[in-house]
Amino acid sequence: MHDRQALNAMVEQALQHLKWPSKPEGLYAPIAYTLEGGGKRIRPVILLMACDMFGGDLNAALPAAIATEVFHNFTLLHDDIMDNAPTRRGKPTVHTRWNSNTAILSGDAMLICAYRILMQSPIVSLPALAETFNRLAIEVCEGQQYDMDFETRNDVSAEEYLNMIGLKTGALIAGALRMGAILAGASNTDAETLAEFGMNLGIAFQLQDDLLDTYGDPSRLGKAVGGDIACNKKTYLLINALTLAPTGTRKELTLIMADRRIDAAEKFTRVRALYDKLGIRELTEQKASEYFDRALAALDRLPLDNTRKEPFKELAHSLIDRQK
Amino acid sequence: MHDRQALNAMVEQALQHLKWPSKPEGLYAPIAYTLEGGGKRIRPVILLMACDMFGGDLNAALPAAIATEVFHNFTLLHDDIMDNAPTRRGKPTVHTRWNSNTAILSGDAMLICAYRILMQSPIVSLPALAETFNRLAIEVCEGQQYDMDFETRNDVSAEEYLNMIGLKTGALIAGALRMGAILAGASNTDAETLAEFGMNLGIAFQLQDDLLDTYGDPSRLGKAVGGDIACNKKTYLLINALTLAPTGTRKELTLIMADRRIDAAEKFTRVRALYDKLGIRELTEQKASEYFDRALAALDRLPLDNTRKEPFKELAHSLIDRQK
Repeated sequence: MHDRQALNAMVEQALQHLKWPSKPEGLYAPIAYTLEGGGKRIRPVILLMACDMFGGDLNAALPAAIATEVFHNFTLLHDDIMDNAPTRRGKPTVHTRWNSNTAILSGDAMLICAYRILMQSPIVSLPALAETFNRLAIEVCEGQQYDMDFETRNDVSAEEYLNMIGLKTGALIAGALRMGAILAGASNTDAETLAEFGMNLGIAFQLQDDLLDTYGDPSRLGKAVGGDIACNKKTYLLINALTLAPTGTRKELTLIMADRRIDAAEKFTRVRALYDKLGIRELTEQKASEYFDRALAALDRLPLDNTRKEPFKELAHSLIDRQK
Repeated sequence: MHDRQALNAMVEQALQHLKWPSKPEGLYAPIAYTLEGGGKRIRPVILLMACDMFGGDLNAALPAAIATEVFHNFTLLHDDIMDNAPTRRGKPTVHTRWNSNTAILSGDAMLICAYRILMQSPIVSLPALAETFNRLAIEVCEGQQYDMDFETRNDVSAEEYLNMIGLKTGALIAGALRMGAILAGASNTDAETLAEFGMNLGIAFQLQDDLLDTYGDPSRLGKAVGGDIACNKKTYLLINALTLAPTGTRKELTLIMADRRIDAAEKFTRVRALYDKLGIRELTEQKASEYFDRALAALDRLPLDNTRKEPFKELAHSLIDRQK
């Protein structure tokens, strides 16, 4: 068994060894820029952890791990165009530093490169890996589409939201774990159980992310909060507030949301006060705990020694208790 | 051996049988819309023709053929955003009918689906197919990047242009032929020779396309001409005119290009007159013939009966003599 730092170092080294052609520069420079941008490399590392847990060969799993990270960064690159996001990880986004056309085309090339890297995996695993990868890739697109659809809808249910984050966030984590298990020759049942852990953890993680953007401490998080409320983002918090509020409170909330004259700080304070009144924080914490417990229950079902599961328990806690 | 109409019918039927999920509609409706849009289906048909020429099983080649067509339509979808094109095949483009974000994301999903369909190919051929597909896909992106780069450059050489259209147009035709040959179990040498036919034919086709946009007869082509001159597109014609013109003529040409007050019809007449003076039409025809002859020479080298090559000769002539 390898510790997380060692796996992280493997991933970073492999990413640094990716060779991008020098020409056309407009196509490849944004790809290198995106991948140099840091990030926690959670997805490739958990893929390697999954392979390691089942006693697989980490070198054989490295292409799939890197493909997963390249794919994830491709989605960020295109999402940033769609969201018109100026920065990512403290640096200008590709469409800001270059332009939208460059960001579209470099993203396309990244997606193709993700497949190219994936296909360096051992041939015996390739059909199952490719099936998993194709499925998670299309699910991430579906999740992004629902997320965009929700922007213009006022009747999004909590259930729809949970489905959306399962696709947008959970599917990639679940798929990465499944690929790691496949590469180690784990049984279908075990691969499925580990994917279930990942899907539930992904949903818990996103709910926690929603919570932190409203209730987090910026100094401990290392980033600003309040962005979701500022742009009326349909998070689990807002959706439940709109659904559960009595008529008067709901009207107040929708008026605040529609009023462009209110400054961001005041809007944040007023919306959060309404959330507090409605018990939205507790409700969301409870839902996140529910998914977190489901994740751990799936892990418990795996027929492996506890020592082999321990790294995943630690990872799960570190992802969820980001501020504690 | 099957005739081209029969292969075309196979492709159309397979495309019609593609099932797209109903939800999220914003993701899948634009994909169905794009693929319903017609087009000549040249790429999937030549893939099947290649398989047929080497005596392969057409049903085994159908996934790769459809993947190629889905990929081609994905590139059109994203290119149309980048070119800000309002219509395609007489219908509004996806980014016009929906919006840019939808067009980006649906395109991404199409690219993933192209891979998904490709992977339904017989497993024995999959590594070689995937390698060919990955290469052609990245080459098409490189070609598109060079094409965009050329818009803001005034020193593009004829050689650079030929390299660009080889990537943007030739690589997909060459790759489709190579995949057809691989699926029929042809030797590497034969697959390579057939790809060489396709690359040269693709370049000849694009040069012919450049010619027709300036010298074609709209009533026989079934579409308007002059678009390239109107937007100063760096075609083989313009690049050579800028390179070969004596100083005075070049100055006149660049003044016409820069003058936004000249109406499109007058600009077309004046630029074409300069091309005539410089012998650009003959030069381009000669270059197209050169690539066409190289294509036919590659076909001749294949160790097969002439009857097996005949459909490709007919296809080559029909693509090049579009107006004759």
